[in-house]
Amino acid sequence: MEFARGHGTGNDFVVLPDLGGELELTTHLVRALCDRRSGIGGDGILRIVPTAKVPESVGLASEAYWFMDYRNADGSVAEMCGNGIRVYARWLQRADLIEPGPLPVATRDGIKVVQVPDDIGADLAVEMGVPVLPGTARTVTVASGTRPGVEVDMGNPHVVVEVNDVADAGPLLQAPTLDPATPANVEFVQVIGPGHLRMRVFERGSGETQSCGTGACAAAVAVAVRAGHDTGAYDVDVPGGRLHVGWQHGVTLTGPAEIVATGTVDPAWLATR
Amino acid sequence: MEFARGHGTGNDFVVLPDLGGELELTTHLVRALCDRRSGIGGDGILRIVPTAKVPESVGLASEAYWFMDYRNADGSVAEMCGNGIRVYARWLQRADLIEPGPLPVATRDGIKVVQVPDDIGADLAVEMGVPVLPGTARTVTVASGTRPGVEVDMGNPHVVVEVNDVADAGPLLQAPTLDPATPANVEFVQVIGPGHLRMRVFERGSGETQSCGTGACAAAVAVAVRAGHDTGAYDVDVPGGRLHVGWQHGVTLTGPAEIVATGTVDPAWLATR
Repeated sequence: MEFARGHGTGNDFVVLPDLGGELELTTHLVRALCDRRSGIGGDGILRIVPTAKVPESVGLASEAYWFMDYRNADGSVAEMCGNGIRVYARWLQRADLIEPGPLPVATRDGIKVVQVPDDIGADLAVEMGVPVLPGTARTVTVASGTRPGVEVDMGNPHVVVEVNDVADAGPLLQAPTLDPATPANVEFVQVIGPGHLRMRVFERGSGETQSCGTGACAAAVAVAVRAGHDTGAYDVDVPGGRLHVGWQHGVTLTGPAEIVATGTVDPAWLATR
Repeated sequence: MEFARGHGTGNDFVVLPDLGGELELTTHLVRALCDRRSGIGGDGILRIVPTAKVPESVGLASEAYWFMDYRNADGSVAEMCGNGIRVYARWLQRADLIEPGPLPVATRDGIKVVQVPDDIGADLAVEMGVPVLPGTARTVTVASGTRPGVEVDMGNPHVVVEVNDVADAGPLLQAPTLDPATPANVEFVQVIGPGHLRMRVFERGSGETQSCGTGACAAAVAVAVRAGHDTGAYDVDVPGGRLHVGWQHGVTLTGPAEIVATGTVDPAWLATR
């Protein structure tokens, strides 16, 4: 079994090229591969497979040659991952399987278009869709009290809380809880300059993470809306690096993606999984 | 740059074969490789190099063909690693560079002999040297109060605390502190049957870990001494798996070692480090 390891702003993935569409990804195998001690380690798996080889998505094959089969580290299936899809496209680029320019990728959340640059070290941009702001009042409880939050749906649910200082982690970031208790990712965002945000994110089920692509989009949209805008452009600094969010009806997320290494899973290891 | 990822009871390593002795391992590069998000990820690096190519150890070359250059994830140099040396030997075995039987390995703590089994899935045994018990009274403070500890030196310092239940993690394992405050690894050990221990370990600078080879040896020796013995044989269950410790003047540590994957570090990644 061939693999690669890659990351985008610290969100890391085991990439599994499956050009023949023959790989059987069980929950057990996903967990074993993503284990950071006894496996390869990652936040999830990106299986790279032709759309025509994926029965549930074969109808998209005429629009997107490649399908992104994303699995969370716990083995569950996921629709989309804003950092993952850049790593996905970067792997195809490093493998000389695509040309620079717009790359449509089929996902369980439909077709996403990645802008692939000429330079293998340059950022990639992804169209992330249109944000939805239901306008529901949400309150986030942190150690130091409660904070008002803005709900933003980017295909997955977010609650964005503006704070004066995201480095004030003790009181702010200890086990935020939501009221009403509908699950969502929680972003704490600080405006550090014109068009420049700093963000820390708590993901559902994972706690604080290095980065969250949809979370960066939600944070930028929430800050723009609070300032009375319905468009905007922001650099968003996350613990794992810098993302850029552009909002003009749809949201575009731009950021780095690196392939760290490529290799082969040891047959003896695989045989015991 | 070729690499492998391997682990022994959840203590994981980036293996770097350097048969020509030409690899320049800077602190910066060690940290980048061991980074669990933006690198390959590991508790440390095992550089596999002929002893004759290591100026500081060239005098050991007639006794041990191979030298284990171990680096901690923070880039610091380390003498020895009880779980790492098994992974080291397993890599040589998987690469068909050694035969089953006793394998002397040169380390910064002198020559260590690993017993390499015929089967690539079987446990490996390592002679870990003679434990030293200075007899100094040590006290470990945990959330629920203070506990008496036994000091055991296995080349590195340990303080072993016997408890009724290592699963009682809340009160026991929150930030143990030592008095006198000489740094040491702290092992909490529970006797769960004749010759059978359960252990959790807090390593200096790392917090709780999945496993610690010298810690398992120290725990077994401390339990034996408390029972009035100066020899013993124990299975030691750690969070990452099971180790076996035999004590008869010197201590022998036996346990599993797996190579997870082998591959190549991406040149573009390496060029930016």
